[in-house]
Amino acid sequence: MILPFEFASIPKIIFGPGKLSDLFNIIPSFGNNVLFVIGESSLKKSGTWEKIIENMETLGITSSHVSVSSEPSPSLVDEYAMQYRRESLDVIVSIGGGSVIDAGKAISAMIPKQDSIKNYLEGVGTKKPDGEKIPFIAIPTTSGTGSEATKNAVISQVGEDGFKKSLRHDNYIPNIAIIDPELTLSCPPSITAACGMDAFTQLYGSYVSTKANPMTDALAYSGMKYMKDNLIPACTNAQDNIKVRTALAYGSLMSGITLANAGLGIVHGFASSIGGLFEIPHGVVCGTLLAEAVNMNIEKLKEMGEKGKESLKKHAKIGALLANESGSIDTEMLKYLEILITNLDNWTKTLHLESLGKYGITEDDIDKIVELTGLKNNPVKLNSKDMAEILKKRL
Amino acid sequence: MILPFEFASIPKIIFGPGKLSDLFNIIPSFGNNVLFVIGESSLKKSGTWEKIIENMETLGITSSHVSVSSEPSPSLVDEYAMQYRRESLDVIVSIGGGSVIDAGKAISAMIPKQDSIKNYLEGVGTKKPDGEKIPFIAIPTTSGTGSEATKNAVISQVGEDGFKKSLRHDNYIPNIAIIDPELTLSCPPSITAACGMDAFTQLYGSYVSTKANPMTDALAYSGMKYMKDNLIPACTNAQDNIKVRTALAYGSLMSGITLANAGLGIVHGFASSIGGLFEIPHGVVCGTLLAEAVNMNIEKLKEMGEKGKESLKKHAKIGALLANESGSIDTEMLKYLEILITNLDNWTKTLHLESLGKYGITEDDIDKIVELTGLKNNPVKLNSKDMAEILKKRL
Repeated sequence: MILPFEFASIPKIIFGPGKLSDLFNIIPSFGNNVLFVIGESSLKKSGTWEKIIENMETLGITSSHVSVSSEPSPSLVDEYAMQYRRESLDVIVSIGGGSVIDAGKAISAMIPKQDSIKNYLEGVGTKKPDGEKIPFIAIPTTSGTGSEATKNAVISQVGEDGFKKSLRHDNYIPNIAIIDPELTLSCPPSITAACGMDAFTQLYGSYVSTKANPMTDALAYSGMKYMKDNLIPACTNAQDNIKVRTALAYGSLMSGITLANAGLGIVHGFASSIGGLFEIPHGVVCGTLLAEAVNMNIEKLKEMGEKGKESLKKHAKIGALLANESGSIDTEMLKYLEILITNLDNWTKTLHLESLGKYGITEDDIDKIVELTGLKNNPVKLNSKDMAEILKKRL
Repeated sequence: MILPFEFASIPKIIFGPGKLSDLFNIIPSFGNNVLFVIGESSLKKSGTWEKIIENMETLGITSSHVSVSSEPSPSLVDEYAMQYRRESLDVIVSIGGGSVIDAGKAISAMIPKQDSIKNYLEGVGTKKPDGEKIPFIAIPTTSGTGSEATKNAVISQVGEDGFKKSLRHDNYIPNIAIIDPELTLSCPPSITAACGMDAFTQLYGSYVSTKANPMTDALAYSGMKYMKDNLIPACTNAQDNIKVRTALAYGSLMSGITLANAGLGIVHGFASSIGGLFEIPHGVVCGTLLAEAVNMNIEKLKEMGEKGKESLKKHAKIGALLANESGSIDTEMLKYLEILITNLDNWTKTLHLESLGKYGITEDDIDKIVELTGLKNNPVKLNSKDMAEILKKRL
């Protein structure tokens, strides 16, 4: 039986190598005053930024830009929103990684407001966002967060009272997402690996989520299908292969759509708590914890007997997919579960995903992390001991 | 390699038995003046219409309604658009089959215009729609056209100069689609069969379309997966089984999303030409022609040798799905192609799908029909003789 579900709208998607140039037809359809939100350097190095500015001049578009160098903080969003509140912007365009897209998404939502974004963040403020915003176009340069398709912007405040929380509304889904895999060609292996693991974790998390529905299942499975054989090559011997980069970009896009509609699991629970306490890239937290978390989920599901069966089947289906096998999930369940764990373990090793310890996290921090960690829509309940065990293995 | 693609936005989807009642929270969020577009009788018979009107009164919403009893003609749309042009409607809600949804969609688009819809129809008028519209909510009562998720409204003028053409714009995708399978429980077997075959034809057509992309592939396959074991029961011994009806409603929804983004094939080419010439339900044309058209496509793809291989594989994957088998598509290709054809043949027989002759179509009409029939995004080129052959088998 298909259980009731909701599926938020998705952006209009323009996907394919070279599609960045569609932007120059699209911006004028919104108006003639654009704010670009960009990252620190790679766009400029590649000459892409220069090309964009030239095109804006040719088109007679007034453009300005702000730079974002790390995961956006409330004060960064507040500052830029205040700065551009009195300008009559027609559209905001983010070109960059997840942080840049989240920053642009948040700025586009906060310009029509008068107060701080803190008041609207889940679990931080008390006000509910109403969805009003400046039209927003997202153009990712990494294959990672899928933020180009989600309805939330993750805002981080790092430190003792730190948090990593979302500004969320159905209407914050970007109006248009342009996914041009050429923009990811220059992404270095360590970032490609961390982002790729983030995307795969999102696909896994939404596929086995308690909130999954047939649509998210279909799209998450499709995303994993294209990512599985391309993640390692994109970080090793095929970094400049556009076919490989295109597959990752597709997987990442799917992960954004599915997480927005099915939610995520324990790994992203950790990413939220750890990200609030430590300066550690989001993708590294996800990548380094995924294999151990999947292992734990499977163990706990097995303990549940009949009740865990449906979710174990889904886990086994991912294993079969990773192994390119089409045997019966029912009779080959254990084999495929084993393949899933072994594959993810291999990815963790091959991609040299850094341990949490590298970022100063020690055994003493575990209790605090666990205390702050929510299970989200993890397919099985984990207690504090289970969570601590996952973390200990990746210190 | 994933080829470049675009994917239009989709409506916000609210899916599940009983979800019609969400409408009473949603309408006030648009405003307090609503126009309902409904079918002739079933809503009123079931008491649902009375419930809706009561709720509108309780909420203090001004509501009016118009009825649509057949596929909408230009004059019907023009008349209702003129009638409501001066009222300041906040939202239009269609509750009914594909004709009712298409009528509402077209009225919502034509109210902001001053002239006839004929000027904006593809292949009929010369003006391009600009996407301006009254917000529109679609609530299907059949599992058929998938119009609740598409960006086009099919408008028919029957007769010698007849046509069946689309009003189309990305922005005509309904703002919200409420899919409540309970509304389909009273749909009689013959209509359930014709609509279900229409939906399956759309899933097949977009899955093997020349414009298919990985997203439409994933969603079309998912739709077929849920439809395949439920179509016959919904028309025979499980008409009042909500689980069965829910699966069909899901398949139909997917078919709307995939056709909007991947297009359709020869069967819908016929539906367009035949529908303009004869008074015959759209679903009957699709249902009666599907098996023969698939048969022809497979024959022609086989003749293409290596070039037809990829599409044959996709056809075989549908065969394997229908047979619940997971063998290798490469080694079992011929077997699965055979299964596909046999299954569709069986459906045609079991569902007693009427022949074209029942609607007055004779051998003398074939040339004219073929002349007016476009291939759309059919996976293989068919010539006039091939098309005539499909039609002759279903006269």
